[in-house]
This record gives sequence, structure tokens and C-alpha cells, in this order.
Amino acid sequence: MQRSTAATRATVVDSACALFADRGYRGTSMKDIAEALGVSAPGLYNHVASKQEILYAIMDKAMDRAIAALDEALAGIDDVAEQLRRATESLVLDFLRYPAEVTVCNNEVRGLEPVNRLAIVAKRDQYAGRVRRIIESGHRAGRFQTRTPDLAAFAVLEMGNGAKSWFRPSGRYPDTYVAREYGEFALRIVGCTG
Amino acid sequence: MQRSTAATRATVVDSACALFADRGYRGTSMKDIAEALGVSAPGLYNHVASKQEILYAIMDKAMDRAIAALDEALAGIDDVAEQLRRATESLVLDFLRYPAEVTVCNNEVRGLEPVNRLAIVAKRDQYAGRVRRIIESGHRAGRFQTRTPDLAAFAVLEMGNGAKSWFRPSGRYPDTYVAREYGEFALRIVGCTG
Repeated sequence: MQRSTAATRATVVDSACALFADRGYRGTSMKDIAEALGVSAPGLYNHVASKQEILYAIMDKAMDRAIAALDEALAGIDDVAEQLRRATESLVLDFLRYPAEVTVCNNEVRGLEPVNRLAIVAKRDQYAGRVRRIIESGHRAGRFQTRTPDLAAFAVLEMGNGAKSWFRPSGRYPDTYVAREYGEFALRIVGCTG
Repeated sequence: MQRSTAATRATVVDSACALFADRGYRGTSMKDIAEALGVSAPGLYNHVASKQEILYAIMDKAMDRAIAALDEALAGIDDVAEQLRRATESLVLDFLRYPAEVTVCNNEVRGLEPVNRLAIVAKRDQYAGRVRRIIESGHRAGRFQTRTPDLAAFAVLEMGNGAKSWFRPSGRYPDTYVAREYGEFALRIVGCTG
């Protein structure tokens, strides 16, 4: 879709994100991004130095947003089952609301240059680590009955990832309802009792 | 990795699969595939007509293999809980044993030309439909306690997909153990009783 409005750094990043999600990072050129925005390719370089800078900006913004949402969801919550429910809801809502960003984060980590990759993987590990520690903590306290809290954590972190493919905002369930159901699935996976 | 052995259609497809998984379909050229095989790019065309033909061959083989494994896992099993356990184990083992093929199937459906896409999506729907019908059937029979069998099916189908990213054959758990745990998670998600 051609747009004639002036490009900004934010519109460059957003437009590139949709293309990277659709065609992959390597499959998208700066010329493709410029065409999608209706600007000249040299004009893009007023806003960003490189395609790599755009990829990093997409993932960094996506991770910061997901981490901030998780912080907010967990603020003041002490009960470990409620923590897991809220963390899962926050995760699933992020998948459903930002499908293109999440697709790029899933598929393009290997497209990052080493320094950028370290930074993004650190944020991803920070996020996953919080969910993991909730499950370990509930397991240690005897609230969660599972032989393998580590595998349960992987399942919880992953099970909503595909939802972005089938979810439609106009579909049968609102995103908050889907998130609540997945929160329930997470409690079941870890064998939450009480 | 350069190989000097003569290329065959099978080695072309396998080599392309690793590259497509790593760099994306659009991000991989026929020249890249030829280089990985240590043959000339024109020489590839003795084995395949186009990059599109290779992409279709990868996905078609992957779907046929997954469907055959599911058939085998379910053969002669009447109990719906055991069906779900075995179907989930079969699915997760496929993810763990063929990570590159699964990555291509996940990420590159949009890279298929329309006729090829219809054929692959039909096989994917056939596969998912069988898992979905097991869950619906258990739900109708009162064996599975869930408000949303449709969402439970999505969660079951997706939760093992990420396992291919962290699983290592030399790691803590054998693939069969991981698959068995995910089978247990599936039964928990659907609220299997008895």
C-alpha cells in the first residue's frame, strides 16, 4: 500500500515490521520499505542508518513493551497461582495485539548482528526467566504439581504463540477472553491445586 | 558447508531446507543452494525446475511424514484420552526431530504460490482437524472438562512448537521423555478426568 505522508522514524520501523513479518528480514530490501512508504530509498536514510538498525529497533521496542506489560500485570500480586495466571494473560495479549512484531521476534533473531543479538536475547531471557521463576516458586511451595517445571514453563511460554495466526479481532472471542482461557490452561499445565 | 558429492533431488531439497529455515525462502537464492551443495547453479536445474518447486517439496514431504506418524500413533486406539496423549506425543516428536522442516512449514506458507498453498494448507488442516476432533469427542463424552475445546486444541497444537528451539538431542531429556510430558500437559489442558 503506497502512502504519501512524510515518513518518520516510527513509520519506517512500523512499515518495515509488516514487511519483515511477511517476507522475512533478508527477503526485504530498503527499496521495498521505501516503496511501501511511498518515499525514495535514499530518503529512508534520513531516519535510519541501516536495515539492521530497523530490525533491532523493532525487536527492542517489542521486548520493552512486553516486559512493561508483565511488570504491570504482576504489580502487587503475591499469590503464585495468580501471578502465573496474570503473566500468561499478559503474554497472550501481547501475541494477539502485536502479531507482526512477535513474528519478527520469533523468526529473525538470527538476522541480528552479534551485539544486537546479545541485547535482544538478554531481554527475551529476562522475560522468560520471570515466568520460569513463578513456576519454580509454585513448584517448590507445593502449589504446582508437575514433574518437570522447566518443561511446563516452555509449554506455557509457547502455547499462545500460534494464537496470533488464527486470532481475528472481529472473531468469536475477544482477546481478553482468549487470554483468560490460556491463563487457565497454564494453571492446569503446572498442576495448580487450591 | 561445501560438499563435493554429486547433488541429487533429495540433497537439493535437504540443503535448501536448512537454508530456508535459517534465512527464509525469499532470503535464499538458487545460487546459495548451489554453493551449499558445491555444485553450479545451472546444475541445480537438472534436479528441480524452480525454488518454488523445492519449497513445495519440503512442505509436502514434512506434512506427509507428520500425517503418517499420526496415523501410526492412533492405529487401534479407542480411548479418547489415550488418543490425545499419543497424538500430542507424535506431534512433539515431529517438532523435535525435524526442526528445520517444521520451521519452514511455520514461516513460509505465504511463500507458496496459490495452487501449492492450497494443497499444503489442506494437509495442515487435515492434521490439525484430527487433533481437534479427538478433543471435541472427549468433550462431548464428558471425559474432557473445558469451556473452550476449540481454544484447548490450539494450545495443544502449538505448545510443543517452540520446543524445537531449545531441545538438544544431547540435552537433559530424551525426545521421547519430552514428548511424554507434553502428552500429559495436553490431557491437563483439556481437563481430562478418569
